[in-house]
Amino acid sequence: MKLLSVDTIQEVQLKFDTYFLKMKRETERVSLRGACGRYLAEDIYSDMNVPSFRRSIVDGFAVYAADTFGVGESAPVFLGMVGTVQMGEPSSFRVGSGKTAYVPTGGMVPDGADAVVMIEHVDLLDNATIAVNRSVAPNENLMNIGEDYAEKERFYEKGHRISVKDVGLLAACGKASILVYKKPRISILSTGDELVGPSEMPELCQVRDINSYAIASMAEAAGAEIHSIEIVGDQYDIFRVCVADALKNSDLVLISGGSSAGNKDLTEKVIDSLGSPGVITHGVAIKPGKPTIIGVFKQPEKTKAVIGLPGHPMSAIIVYDVIVKRFLKKYFFGNSEAEESLMAVLSENLHAGDGRETYQLVELEKMTGDEDGEKSAVQKARVIKSAPCVWVAKPIRAKSGSISPLMKADGYVVMNADSEGLEGGRLVEVVLIGKGY
Amino acid sequence: MKLLSVDTIQEVQLKFDTYFLKMKRETERVSLRGACGRYLAEDIYSDMNVPSFRRSIVDGFAVYAADTFGVGESAPVFLGMVGTVQMGEPSSFRVGSGKTAYVPTGGMVPDGADAVVMIEHVDLLDNATIAVNRSVAPNENLMNIGEDYAEKERFYEKGHRISVKDVGLLAACGKASILVYKKPRISILSTGDELVGPSEMPELCQVRDINSYAIASMAEAAGAEIHSIEIVGDQYDIFRVCVADALKNSDLVLISGGSSAGNKDLTEKVIDSLGSPGVITHGVAIKPGKPTIIGVFKQPEKTKAVIGLPGHPMSAIIVYDVIVKRFLKKYFFGNSEAEESLMAVLSENLHAGDGRETYQLVELEKMTGDEDGEKSAVQKARVIKSAPCVWVAKPIRAKSGSISPLMKADGYVVMNADSEGLEGGRLVEVVLIGKGY
Repeated sequence: MKLLSVDTIQEVQLKFDTYFLKMKRETERVSLRGACGRYLAEDIYSDMNVPSFRRSIVDGFAVYAADTFGVGESAPVFLGMVGTVQMGEPSSFRVGSGKTAYVPTGGMVPDGADAVVMIEHVDLLDNATIAVNRSVAPNENLMNIGEDYAEKERFYEKGHRISVKDVGLLAACGKASILVYKKPRISILSTGDELVGPSEMPELCQVRDINSYAIASMAEAAGAEIHSIEIVGDQYDIFRVCVADALKNSDLVLISGGSSAGNKDLTEKVIDSLGSPGVITHGVAIKPGKPTIIGVFKQPEKTKAVIGLPGHPMSAIIVYDVIVKRFLKKYFFGNSEAEESLMAVLSENLHAGDGRETYQLVELEKMTGDEDGEKSAVQKARVIKSAPCVWVAKPIRAKSGSISPLMKADGYVVMNADSEGLEGGRLVEVVLIGKGY
Repeated sequence: MKLLSVDTIQEVQLKFDTYFLKMKRETERVSLRGACGRYLAEDIYSDMNVPSFRRSIVDGFAVYAADTFGVGESAPVFLGMVGTVQMGEPSSFRVGSGKTAYVPTGGMVPDGADAVVMIEHVDLLDNATIAVNRSVAPNENLMNIGEDYAEKERFYEKGHRISVKDVGLLAACGKASILVYKKPRISILSTGDELVGPSEMPELCQVRDINSYAIASMAEAAGAEIHSIEIVGDQYDIFRVCVADALKNSDLVLISGGSSAGNKDLTEKVIDSLGSPGVITHGVAIKPGKPTIIGVFKQPEKTKAVIGLPGHPMSAIIVYDVIVKRFLKKYFFGNSEAEESLMAVLSENLHAGDGRETYQLVELEKMTGDEDGEKSAVQKARVIKSAPCVWVAKPIRAKSGSISPLMKADGYVVMNADSEGLEGGRLVEVVLIGKGY
């Protein structure tokens, strides 16, 4: 009967929607310098035209363009200087036909002028006269008011994640502080009598807790705050107290379960004992990730969730990325931006996963097109012929529970439930994982 | 004469090597949870074999594999139970031929057994006997000692940047704290009488300071610490005092210069007034980026640098990425890892930059192969035919000094000094910028 209750990813998302779609997101205001990685809780508009004045984009002389039509090295036009524009100051004089004024890059083009001649194309005859020996078109070498961006133009939408390159543009919009969504608080519990922390030397049959550290760093990179990381034994009473306590202090509790069947039952039992509706998903039809458990608790102030991840590190990381990260992005950050991905040539055939959506971890290698030796499926792929080099995606195959292959895992390739597999040599999309710092 | 003193990127690197290659990097110890984004100042080795015992990778029964050879549904083999292995505990009993013991996933395979039969392939006859109806090979469903990784295996080399996905593996290596390189301190000065801060509304002819915020967030994302950001006017005396003060408190001073020619002269003059050797590079043969100025100061304790960036935001960001970021990575972090990049189909022809190494900012767009309408150079490219979708790199063309196009800039394409340009439709490598948070 248990197998029948496995949900697809789409079913999991619908269930989450039921409980979390209408949840009010909490916001806070942060300074521009601390805004990287946060998610916008406000739309961002420019508060002014830029430039707000007609700005020269070269060092040169402001002119009335028609004065220069037809001029050349051998037939210059002579213009009378009416002044020099200072940086950061409006020009009080007017440049009409037959007149000119020096204007530095970034300076204001005076009224009457409609173009700027670069200083290289001008000879200074005396303090009052220049010879222009190249023609300019109207609007040449200047930016008109609002040409870069206009007042009230929308730069970013609510939900957008502020990246490094956005900070300069937020400064341009006058956003010295920014309204962002609060970081959801996550507690991570690792269950298993065999687990010890990273600072301990495991005794025979013990193993170090890897998952909670890996998941914590991934969740922080996604914009969450880690409230606590704790190792808990497999005893029902103690485990239950720890989960209840974590729930009280967090928006989301992640349980990095032991991988044995008994552990899954224990987690389900604890979740169901803590509130309503309790366990909403007993397993997810993805590979890897079937033993994923999801619990939800409707509380007076807010609804909270517990997600039990598979015990194997490579599975836990995939389920984090596919379920937990999407959960955080959608309900806490209102963010629907695509994950980072790149295209790569698949190095070998991939088999589909018996009717489940399948995530295959891959290692990315750069390969140049002109290598010697026997031609592999990759080298034979057409794509190589026109490329200086390509990314090759090599499936990572490892025994269940292995840790070291994680070092090589750059991302994963997704195969739908009805996929018949992927042929080596074709281009595939690789969703990148663990790219943050 | 000035044009003659422009250096190539390679010449700049050689000059930097002269002054900084032997500089001693400072280190500090940080906790594992705060290690993301830091650069390793020690090689990381595993301190144990993993697994440290023969570990079952399924829930099942430990057996002597030869006992199961030739068995099947219709011809099972009957084995006597000698015990049950507990998680996290060594097994005290021995499983010889004709015997078996239950072992959970992650549990220790008892001595004498050399394989594990999955529980699905076993019938429990009574408390003391099981029937195995599928054969297993020796070592099936278990991991041998050190099979995942061996004691003293090197996981990471000094200089590696710790990413999100490394944290779990560092935990596996028992690294509760990690020796990393100290963050270099950077001060950023924006010069220009026309500049105001992001919280101010510019008056006519004034503009908001964009560059220093953009550069600060990029430098922080690369692992530096920003000591200060300051706007300074164009007066020599004040500017000189501010640079001198910044140098005292930082390892590197970045000057985000005004873009006028006068400003470059001012910056050079100030740098040369502050110590020896002073300005070592008066300009760099890259496009954009020619007005880049580099100064070096040999001081009793350590050598420091001042880098004057171009005033145009799009140029400043490229020069940061190509010169400043490489400088930080090489001399402060000992890191030679490649920048993140991906392959994309170029949407149109790119012209080479008159003998200078050229960096063309591009926007990345995802395109599926089966779009309707007129075939562009991109759609005609062979590569499309075998791909579900590809990245298309669209050159960003904008007037000098524009800010808004930065929003679209995902990376850049590099053309060597002797390049004859790139043809639309070919695959190019796009170095990603501003990806951090």
